[in-house]
Amino acid sequence: MLDNIDPNKPMDTPTFRRELKVLETRLAMLSQPVKDLGIPVIIVFEGWSASGKGTLIKRILYPLDPRQFNVHTMDKVPEDWRMRPFLWPYWACLPARGRFSIIDKSWHRVILPAYAEKWGLSPKAIQGFFPDVSAFERQLRDDGAVIIKIFLHISQEAQYERFKELEKKPNTAWRVDAHDWEQNKKYGAYLKQFDEMIKQTDFDGGRWSVVEANDTKFAAIKTLKIITRRIDEEINRLSAPAGNDSPAPKPEAPAASKGILSAADLSRCLKEKEYNERVVKLQNRLSDLGYRLYKARRPVIIVFEGWDASGKGGNIKRLTERLDPRSYEVIPIAAPSAVELDHHYLWRFMNKMPKDGHVAIFDRSWYGRVMVERVENITPPERWRAAYREINDMERHLINHGAIIFKFWLHIDPEEQLARFEARRGDPAKRHKITDEDWRNREKWDQYERAVEEMLRKTSTKYAPWTIVESNDKKYSRVKVMDIVAAELEKQLE
Amino acid sequence: MLDNIDPNKPMDTPTFRRELKVLETRLAMLSQPVKDLGIPVIIVFEGWSASGKGTLIKRILYPLDPRQFNVHTMDKVPEDWRMRPFLWPYWACLPARGRFSIIDKSWHRVILPAYAEKWGLSPKAIQGFFPDVSAFERQLRDDGAVIIKIFLHISQEAQYERFKELEKKPNTAWRVDAHDWEQNKKYGAYLKQFDEMIKQTDFDGGRWSVVEANDTKFAAIKTLKIITRRIDEEINRLSAPAGNDSPAPKPEAPAASKGILSAADLSRCLKEKEYNERVVKLQNRLSDLGYRLYKARRPVIIVFEGWDASGKGGNIKRLTERLDPRSYEVIPIAAPSAVELDHHYLWRFMNKMPKDGHVAIFDRSWYGRVMVERVENITPPERWRAAYREINDMERHLINHGAIIFKFWLHIDPEEQLARFEARRGDPAKRHKITDEDWRNREKWDQYERAVEEMLRKTSTKYAPWTIVESNDKKYSRVKVMDIVAAELEKQLE
Repeated sequence: MLDNIDPNKPMDTPTFRRELKVLETRLAMLSQPVKDLGIPVIIVFEGWSASGKGTLIKRILYPLDPRQFNVHTMDKVPEDWRMRPFLWPYWACLPARGRFSIIDKSWHRVILPAYAEKWGLSPKAIQGFFPDVSAFERQLRDDGAVIIKIFLHISQEAQYERFKELEKKPNTAWRVDAHDWEQNKKYGAYLKQFDEMIKQTDFDGGRWSVVEANDTKFAAIKTLKIITRRIDEEINRLSAPAGNDSPAPKPEAPAASKGILSAADLSRCLKEKEYNERVVKLQNRLSDLGYRLYKARRPVIIVFEGWDASGKGGNIKRLTERLDPRSYEVIPIAAPSAVELDHHYLWRFMNKMPKDGHVAIFDRSWYGRVMVERVENITPPERWRAAYREINDMERHLINHGAIIFKFWLHIDPEEQLARFEARRGDPAKRHKITDEDWRNREKWDQYERAVEEMLRKTSTKYAPWTIVESNDKKYSRVKVMDIVAAELEKQLE
Repeated sequence: MLDNIDPNKPMDTPTFRRELKVLETRLAMLSQPVKDLGIPVIIVFEGWSASGKGTLIKRILYPLDPRQFNVHTMDKVPEDWRMRPFLWPYWACLPARGRFSIIDKSWHRVILPAYAEKWGLSPKAIQGFFPDVSAFERQLRDDGAVIIKIFLHISQEAQYERFKELEKKPNTAWRVDAHDWEQNKKYGAYLKQFDEMIKQTDFDGGRWSVVEANDTKFAAIKTLKIITRRIDEEINRLSAPAGNDSPAPKPEAPAASKGILSAADLSRCLKEKEYNERVVKLQNRLSDLGYRLYKARRPVIIVFEGWDASGKGGNIKRLTERLDPRSYEVIPIAAPSAVELDHHYLWRFMNKMPKDGHVAIFDRSWYGRVMVERVENITPPERWRAAYREINDMERHLINHGAIIFKFWLHIDPEEQLARFEARRGDPAKRHKITDEDWRNREKWDQYERAVEEMLRKTSTKYAPWTIVESNDKKYSRVKVMDIVAAELEKQLE
């Protein structure tokens, strides 16, 4: 691909000036509907050293309101990033709805050999790179983002000249270092790597545009054309009468027989004495495993979902009681804030994922997307339906990085829930734990059950399966959770 | 101090068990009013290696709901921190109202020689350490936080034994490293350093408690007693009938003659031709200075405040137009979010401060505290009055780190504002920029003017002075801002 493109496309100054003016006005005009329609615009720059990314980014920003964009330079790889899945820092750069993020050096570059080494990518992560990146970009697009990927291409000679030019002036000499010269000397080898990167990450809807950049004027005009065209297309798509291009969603398949939840034997219980003995033993095992995790630098993610009053809080309490408090974090999930609503729904969760060697326990989670957001009609069907795949993709990305994921559904029956609600209502110390909403949710038990069944079926993957925890008896429930966590960690840390 | 304290205080097991039970129940009970009253509780642990911080923290957390606390281990100094004022990472650890943050290794340690070196602290930052820390803790206390500072003290022999014990077991051996042994060998020298740290940071309301920790049982009981007592005191203070202990605030001093604002000559203006020439020159100078800043690793903070429609947006646009987009960020400040309201009001601003070599431009800022929050009665008088000092303290901390701060008040007169409002109302493309609130604010011009006058007087410090920018003429205003920024940067970068 790249070797067939001649980066040498000159443009004369009058043409440049004329076109620039038109395109700048165009971009300025487009920025208002971008805001009004709430489109997140992601513009990604890759390319050779000294291919003019900085100057070009300045050109794009010129017509925009400085309060509507952020620029992220993702050049260095701080130590902290290496303790996270490789897409993690990029989640933090994503624009809110109606804003632009310009990303100078992107997640694509992670796969270049020199970068993969900097990241300390595991073989599994390298293997997962392309599917993970493709899933990431699809998620963003499905959420309404426009992703524009620009590769700035210059020739070996042009690069050589630019380095020399930069080195001449004391103010810019520091910008050329040994790595840059190395790239110039081994231009052919780097060309192959870039080419591979582009080919492998050229997805539908996230296509690369290679911009010939020997002449900065030509590069600026072409880039601005690409950007304005892509944004314009998206605005037109959104302004078109609804239902025109997307086929009507298929009617929901009849619910499968309620296999999973109703098969749970809720009569299971534990005697006080056995419970006490086992809890102590399990907590000691877990404490020990915590240190081994830390040494092995494996991150652990534990998700607790379940009916209201199914005992999530008590369960988390017992699970963490003997863990080193510096090793875990409990993350209670409530309704999203305004800022969170302005981003992809997975954004707030990705930002909370644990560092290597640490444990994150989610008290409710991203699964709210396919439960409460579905049942309460907060999210349109095509979006929550897409979430099954999006969630599986996200979890696979975490697994590829080395994470261990547990997902517990704490299951009780409606009678047990009623008894617990009434006990809470009668106890002044616990009364605050029960709200009108809990009673309202209870009335929708059947709807929730359908949603839960579908969720369990569609997101129980080989790499991150659900466990149904029979929780009518709290003691049984707690011991089962600890037991599963301990056994799996032992297996994984062998 | 430390050398007069014998860390060897044994406690027998029955006493320990009895007292522990009582104190755990006590702490569990206190956690509810902490939540209800919205008290942020900050518990800081310092002490010798192997003094038992981990185990002790576990003890404290045991009676608490895992969803009510966070534990922060601030052991390593990532590269990123070194590009920030030394208190910066600790701001991110502060608890929301009604929550506990346990901080294992605190900001106090930054002054220990080994740490100061890790941080790469400048001589100015080292000099500013004690006033900055004292101001930081006072700010948190004034905001209602309880700060509990615990130093765990063990003897040289006890430390030696513990290291040996840890090294024996394969699961714990890795926890002892060369630095630990070095501390044990040079125990006397480290004792002096810790002693100095404690003495110098033992402030009113943020006193250190040294806990004798050779016997972990004694240490646990004493620590729990300190914590429960301090929280209890705070709850009692807050529950006491108001106005009992604090004297009535002094009546506001009569406003000084309106010296500052009315002295501004709003007739200043620039001709189009001169403006165009100067803007180009200034933008080139600024672009050049941007690179020099980056090389010199100085962070720059630019605050824009001013009347509605005084031209902040256009001013920022011209100022940034030729800057390297990777070097600056424009931060528009709106009303705080729910999460932000749950923290100290400076929290959201500190989190946004620029890295070394970068520029942060605030479109409105922390000065809202003493303007809109004062005039609209959002914040009680004793809190916004305290803000003058708090803000000066914060800015001094930034300056000590090497920051360059600009603060611009864009000044127009009411007639000019009216003309601009009406022009906006008449222009469909700009109509969204003017709201009912703007008209309401306008009616309070006199009240705002009083607040602004006081703000300019009380927060114009030698290290971070205000500049009043005559802005009836937009061209004059923009050139003045760029001129001042360019001249000051040149001076500072010489």
